[in-house]
Amino acid sequence: MRHYIGIDIGGTNTTIGLVSEKGSIVIRDEIKIGDFAHRPFIDFLQAIIDSCIALAATHHASIEGVGIGAPNGSIFKGTIEHSDNLPWKDEYQVASIVEEALKCPVRITNDANAAALGEKEFGVAQNLNDFMVITLGTGLGSGIVCGGKVVYGHDGFAGELGHAVVEHEGRDCTCGRRGCLEAYVSIRGIKQTYQELGGTEDEAPADLMVRARKGDVLAKEVFVKTGEWLGLKLADAATYTSPEAFVFFGGIAECSDLFFPAAKATMEANIYNLYSNKIKLLKSSLPANDAAILGSAALVKRSESGTLFD
Amino acid sequence: MRHYIGIDIGGTNTTIGLVSEKGSIVIRDEIKIGDFAHRPFIDFLQAIIDSCIALAATHHASIEGVGIGAPNGSIFKGTIEHSDNLPWKDEYQVASIVEEALKCPVRITNDANAAALGEKEFGVAQNLNDFMVITLGTGLGSGIVCGGKVVYGHDGFAGELGHAVVEHEGRDCTCGRRGCLEAYVSIRGIKQTYQELGGTEDEAPADLMVRARKGDVLAKEVFVKTGEWLGLKLADAATYTSPEAFVFFGGIAECSDLFFPAAKATMEANIYNLYSNKIKLLKSSLPANDAAILGSAALVKRSESGTLFD
Repeated sequence: MRHYIGIDIGGTNTTIGLVSEKGSIVIRDEIKIGDFAHRPFIDFLQAIIDSCIALAATHHASIEGVGIGAPNGSIFKGTIEHSDNLPWKDEYQVASIVEEALKCPVRITNDANAAALGEKEFGVAQNLNDFMVITLGTGLGSGIVCGGKVVYGHDGFAGELGHAVVEHEGRDCTCGRRGCLEAYVSIRGIKQTYQELGGTEDEAPADLMVRARKGDVLAKEVFVKTGEWLGLKLADAATYTSPEAFVFFGGIAECSDLFFPAAKATMEANIYNLYSNKIKLLKSSLPANDAAILGSAALVKRSESGTLFD
Repeated sequence: MRHYIGIDIGGTNTTIGLVSEKGSIVIRDEIKIGDFAHRPFIDFLQAIIDSCIALAATHHASIEGVGIGAPNGSIFKGTIEHSDNLPWKDEYQVASIVEEALKCPVRITNDANAAALGEKEFGVAQNLNDFMVITLGTGLGSGIVCGGKVVYGHDGFAGELGHAVVEHEGRDCTCGRRGCLEAYVSIRGIKQTYQELGGTEDEAPADLMVRARKGDVLAKEVFVKTGEWLGLKLADAATYTSPEAFVFFGGIAECSDLFFPAAKATMEANIYNLYSNKIKLLKSSLPANDAAILGSAALVKRSESGTLFD
């Protein structure tokens, strides 16, 4: 059987999976970004390459191709470019280095585009042709699918909903601007909302989630506020590509029950009438980490058959 | 030679053109919407049908197909649905009625999508695969092209930039919501800006344009403010589909020299760094009214060859 490597480079962890051609993750490995924060990017890349070789060797498999989903990954240039959610800020030629090391085709795209491909191939979006995947983690990413195809934009960088502005002159964002959706709807954003609402401890969203489910009023309010900011921007987002659904993926999406009602209500209260009561909010059905790995693998698998931009 | 009819239904006028297969408008006719404002929609549609028949007869041509660009025109359903910029508010089955009357294929889409097709086929966007056409007239419409294809969305209603919100809790919009871009950047919006800045006369944008070109400070300021609102929203719009250019079309686009500098400066000052200094603002090269007529004709011509959604 043919095997591919799917890689999900996230703001905190990087997960590497050996994926069978039938789309199951045979074995996986994880690298903590923090361990490499003060070292050159090439060290991090070498650790990824070593992991790929080790995974394949363990399974006695040869690698047909490597797909990588990464913040600011460019499908056209094969690069990762000055990402706000990684410790390295320059532009790095990733695809060619990994290709040289592993002697197989390597494709790279935005981590959220990879997640969108994963949902389309294996997840809740299998029967949808127009949807947007929103990844909620350290940051907020998005992958847009229109007419069954991922929207890449002229430079490969379409789908940065996290850096669409929800509050003009609002919170400082890591990108240097103000009021970006990511500054409100992300792990960082949720922590800040908790503090602004009077929270005194240094609570991670996962802990807040537990407290909210136990009925803690402040914790519940944090997720309601988060849902309201999200809903406001979803109403705006609908006017561009008129999706049938927004699909949520990533750590924070696990507590969709806590913020979907406020998000849906705020979206409907603010949406242009053409789109009223048409758009579903869905939670990814794929296990955490799987969508991006499977999507990355699908990216390179598809590119083999000449449909790179499908 | 084969001939098609291209129709551009606008908020003020409807233009009907007989288009040769080579893409030139052989002869055209115009209907004023205002003459039908207090009559049933079917009367207006009958006037369009009569005009098509008359244009074809005058030129001794048979009609191979009819393409219609209209506010809220749905390519999937062949309908016009509750448009804010037309006097009729219900959903009208347009394609089937015109097909029945003229015995040829009829395709209908958003007027801005038709303009986008026109720019792609015949205008400044012939070499672009990722762009957004923005039509500036009574309202503000937009047609989005990604990877060379028009983005229709799951319901055919993608691309309503005019109803993306630029000022939360801002000006009343005709759609019943507040702060929509169309309430600022359109004929109506420009008139209101002029009054808010202290203008006392009932000036049409065309008159303001003349005064601004003569150096009138207030008139110039109106267009600068208009450009600023536009630029703010363009910065946001870029995050969705990462276009190579925004192409401006319609009456107000004629004075692009008066608002492009402010729009460009504001867009760049507010844009996410991934998109900085990448996006061009272009003015349509097609004569007023032509892009939508040619684009509508191209829509039905393409659908004949089985590439309806290209």
